[in-house]
Amino acid sequence: RFADGFQLASEDEEFDLRFHVLNQTDAEVFAPNNRTFGKSGLYIPRVRLYLEGRLTKLWDYEVSLQRSLEGSWDLLDGNVNFHPSDAFQVKFGRQLVPYSYDWFDHLEQYFIAPERALFPLNFGLSRQAGLMGWGHAREGKLDWALGVFNGHLTGLADNNPNLEGVGYLNFRPFLGSEQFPALHHLNVGASGSIGEITRNDTPLPMRTSVQSSDNDEAAEDASAVFLAFNKGTVYQGARRFAAVHLAYYYHGLSFESEWNIGRFQMTRPGLGNKPEIPVGGFHTTLSYFLTGEQIERRTVVQPLRPFQPFHGEWGLGAFEPFIRYSQLNLGENLFTEGLAEGRLWSNDAGMIDLGMNWYPNRWVKFYLTWQHAMFGSPVLVNEAKNTFSRDMNLFWVRGQVYF
Amino acid sequence: RFADGFQLASEDEEFDLRFHVLNQTDAEVFAPNNRTFGKSGLYIPRVRLYLEGRLTKLWDYEVSLQRSLEGSWDLLDGNVNFHPSDAFQVKFGRQLVPYSYDWFDHLEQYFIAPERALFPLNFGLSRQAGLMGWGHAREGKLDWALGVFNGHLTGLADNNPNLEGVGYLNFRPFLGSEQFPALHHLNVGASGSIGEITRNDTPLPMRTSVQSSDNDEAAEDASAVFLAFNKGTVYQGARRFAAVHLAYYYHGLSFESEWNIGRFQMTRPGLGNKPEIPVGGFHTTLSYFLTGEQIERRTVVQPLRPFQPFHGEWGLGAFEPFIRYSQLNLGENLFTEGLAEGRLWSNDAGMIDLGMNWYPNRWVKFYLTWQHAMFGSPVLVNEAKNTFSRDMNLFWVRGQVYF
Amino acid sequence: RFADGFQLASEDEEFDLRFHVLNQTDAEVFAPNNRTFGKSGLYIPRVRLYLEGRLTKLWDYEVSLQRSLEGSWDLLDGNVNFHPSDAFQVKFGRQLVPYSYDWFDHLEQYFIAPERALFPLNFGLSRQAGLMGWGHAREGKLDWALGVFNGHLTGLADNNPNLEGVGYLNFRPFLGSEQFPALHHLNVGASGSIGEITRNDTPLPMRTSVQSSDNDEAAEDASAVFLAFNKGTVYQGARRFAAVHLAYYYHGLSFESEWNIGRFQMTRPGLGNKPEIPVGGFHTTLSYFLTGEQIERRTVVQPLRPFQPFHGEWGLGAFEPFIRYSQLNLGENLFTEGLAEGRLWSNDAGMIDLGMNWYPNRWVKFYLTWQHAMFGSPVLVNEAKNTFSRDMNLFWVRGQVYF
Repeated sequence: RFADGFQLASEDEEFDLRFHVLNQTDAEVFAPNNRTFGKSGLYIPRVRLYLEGRLTKLWDYEVSLQRSLEGSWDLLDGNVNFHPSDAFQVKFGRQLVPYSYDWFDHLEQYFIAPERALFPLNFGLSRQAGLMGWGHAREGKLDWALGVFNGHLTGLADNNPNLEGVGYLNFRPFLGSEQFPALHHLNVGASGSIGEITRNDTPLPMRTSVQSSDNDEAAEDASAVFLAFNKGTVYQGARRFAAVHLAYYYHGLSFESEWNIGRFQMTRPGLGNKPEIPVGGFHTTLSYFLTGEQIERRTVVQPLRPFQPFHGEWGLGAFEPFIRYSQLNLGENLFTEGLAEGRLWSNDAGMIDLGMNWYPNRWVKFYLTWQHAMFGSPVLVNEAKNTFSRDMNLFWVRGQVYF
Repeated sequence: RFADGFQLASEDEEFDLRFHVLNQTDAEVFAPNNRTFGKSGLYIPRVRLYLEGRLTKLWDYEVSLQRSLEGSWDLLDGNVNFHPSDAFQVKFGRQLVPYSYDWFDHLEQYFIAPERALFPLNFGLSRQAGLMGWGHAREGKLDWALGVFNGHLTGLADNNPNLEGVGYLNFRPFLGSEQFPALHHLNVGASGSIGEITRNDTPLPMRTSVQSSDNDEAAEDASAVFLAFNKGTVYQGARRFAAVHLAYYYHGLSFESEWNIGRFQMTRPGLGNKPEIPVGGFHTTLSYFLTGEQIERRTVVQPLRPFQPFHGEWGLGAFEPFIRYSQLNLGENLFTEGLAEGRLWSNDAGMIDLGMNWYPNRWVKFYLTWQHAMFGSPVLVNEAKNTFSRDMNLFWVRGQVYF
Repeated sequence: RFADGFQLASEDEEFDLRFHVLNQTDAEVFAPNNRTFGKSGLYIPRVRLYLEGRLTKLWDYEVSLQRSLEGSWDLLDGNVNFHPSDAFQVKFGRQLVPYSYDWFDHLEQYFIAPERALFPLNFGLSRQAGLMGWGHAREGKLDWALGVFNGHLTGLADNNPNLEGVGYLNFRPFLGSEQFPALHHLNVGASGSIGEITRNDTPLPMRTSVQSSDNDEAAEDASAVFLAFNKGTVYQGARRFAAVHLAYYYHGLSFESEWNIGRFQMTRPGLGNKPEIPVGGFHTTLSYFLTGEQIERRTVVQPLRPFQPFHGEWGLGAFEPFIRYSQLNLGENLFTEGLAEGRLWSNDAGMIDLGMNWYPNRWVKFYLTWQHAMFGSPVLVNEAKNTFSRDMNLFWVRGQVYF
């Protein structure tokens, strides 16, 4: 049976297996191109295989594989979910961590811009092994999640067993309201995490366009960098994040925004203490379907006029122009404490992503984006030529298949 | 079609593809916890995808993927099996090696305790590329296997092409007997291997709770260690193992025991010869289904009263308490020859695994275990604090999905 | 639905997913065996899972995984294909690069000899991320392809974003001809590539029997080497390849031949310039089905008398003896410029592969091969013993499952 992916089910529908595939390919053109980090070229940011389903109505499972830029396949999700009711469920295993609306509510295939905004891109908690209570309560008006996770930061292996507590709330106060029908799909909420990094963990550089769990050559090529840490700098100590979000969907309109703040400790060889680095971020996104499609949240888009010439359907599919502004600010003490080099990098970045999404049918999607980043201080562009710049331009086409 | 996994078949049933998924997540609490090896936390010991089936009735195939603690996906099995009769079959490719009842008869999803006993955990031949004749002969009374394998020890790549000969026999002498119906499922047998390690191969440390083919950070975190070899110590030369086993299943009872002995050669820089290290082990396990389920061997358990409240079935599933004792003894010459440090480690370990398995339905299983290991001499617990201990306690919950 | 792999389709046939598996296991015996590179043993050269299908008739997709000798799973193909007509299609993503008939026309499961000939084995462009226009035009008489690719050379990660232009043409001038029916399946064509390697990239050694993208221990064991580059030698600068091919299939006969030439730049530390190395190669292959099967191209072989004793079909399957000659010549300047050591290696190799393929049914295939390589100058065989040889013998059995 086909229903956005293929489904195999037993006759009594007590078990099923749903199968999904995600494939993305990027063409990136940096202007100018002679950069140390960020090179024009073709990249494969994500290929995923998803297996999910249920084993009697009480238990759900997920197992999914991801291949990202670094080239090897990782486990994305692997968990079992105890599902006595929609409002109260318990998930055990590798799963999405419920910090920030941008991560917990949004699957990568349904994004407005191709990648996340500056703060969630660089400080998302991503997927970790954990135990989480969660649910959709009060007829969909309340999403909640509360869990403990192993605090995993980078790399493939399960090597960072620090318990981290994470919580999430999202309200749709006017869902189903007769008084304010236009506000049905207004979302407002907050999320936060508190943890302790007990083992030295090397940080990834701050990037503009790549979600990566490793700092390999491919990730360095595929994205601009505006802050690389000094050699030997590590995460060590407390890490706390909080966020509030506001999102609104109405007919063809998507509006999303989120404020993030946090503090984390780092250290380096020769530094006796572990200075606490403050970090803050904000992003707001606006998009609109020119072709009349109506949405209630970011999920599958079925174009009203799909592009299917073999069926005499000459519709052009769905078009969704979008604009996003995002920013990220890190504490000046990164530089004064010698954790990163202020002469080369910036602790302050703002970014505009302006583009258009084309959905020829419900499974194929193209993103066309101009990404323009602006930095608070000149940032190293080319190490050999010793050139610096206060901004960065990337022209970016992503082709995506998801079913 | 669903039958413990999903099956796709051609109409004449000449071909089929059966698909299985295994997902395990562990929560481990070490007491005390400030250990160099073995840290409380959440781990993902195994995620597997199995593809198997037949291509006409004469040929079977298996291809399966595993993701273990180290985080990358490996090939578990990949072979073709020539199947002219059940009694005589020939398998070519990567497959389970027929040494020890604990390995060759038992799939990981059907274990009594979450992981194998001390000897098979640390000295199993696991999966290797090989050519093996095997079969189930005499109406199930005799299982036999005889093969040559590439002697692969650790790591993902196929890098150790030493031929190793391995054989296995298991009898069920009273299967179908009218005289001794209570002894139908008595198993008795023996197995052995003989090989030569021609290339230096770094040994893994001796562990209590993790099956791992690599010695990475995740494996170091997930298990206690009671013997780490000195830097530079390698396997080199002959390796021989033998085992005899006795197992018995009757109604809800499982009883299993196996004696293992072996000898292998090691060396290290500065050592002119290759001393032969004797190794011996024993384990015995007892378990019983409190809830009335009857078994004939370790395979799928269908609870008599599944926990399916949506169907008005308020049964609690199946409960199976278990206890296992296992021990492992290595030659004292490991220490006297400078292959490992006797001051830090022990060549003698005994271990009790006491726990309860809960099967809410036939696909979901939870293991609750207390693992208590006892060492012949004090073992390094925390390198920084220079603490030692003669025992180790681990409280361990594993959630498993298999279908 | 089963049709050489399993297919899941929606009722209106607008979407489908086809699933294939390839599994290969090799037994290799080198004579003599005491070699530094190339050790007798069992190897697993390829395990692949293929997912492909369409999302409406206008869009095709492919996602496939490969596990090769090095043991980790890689992405093989991951692309979306815009398919308005068979004659004009556009493929975007990771895909086969259209250089050389041996690569672009031939899938590994349908090979005559187990691995490619010397030139394509060592200088294939393999799979890369790219954008390619292609098609089967003029009622199958013309295959064409033209694309830009990221110039990726070795390793798993997408780390080599150099645009490379590649083109391919294949004609079947007499396809459907009433005048020359015997020439229907005559193929003649040419292909070429032009690119620039802007980043230092370490070359793989020249091998006789292994296709590998990494230079790991497993690849070193599984194949003889006749030219290893000096440490520090890298590809850097222009790379251009061209090829012409002639192939002919008639009843049970396959005849294939291809001439390849190229030039590429290399350098090493201490060398001021980047000398251009000429390379040339040739191979010709002849095979014939003794058992009457007729083919039009290298694809699935359905034996006329399959070996299915359970159906009373005692046919022996299909038998196809084959012989291939191939050669590879590299510029003498490799040695004079110090990029490789002429005293140890040869820049000139010829090779005969003589063997027999057995197809017991359409999914299982065995290759039995004697590979005999001849070198223009003595080549290092065993480093420790300082032995050299002008030839190499490998006896090789490969078992393959593909469905």
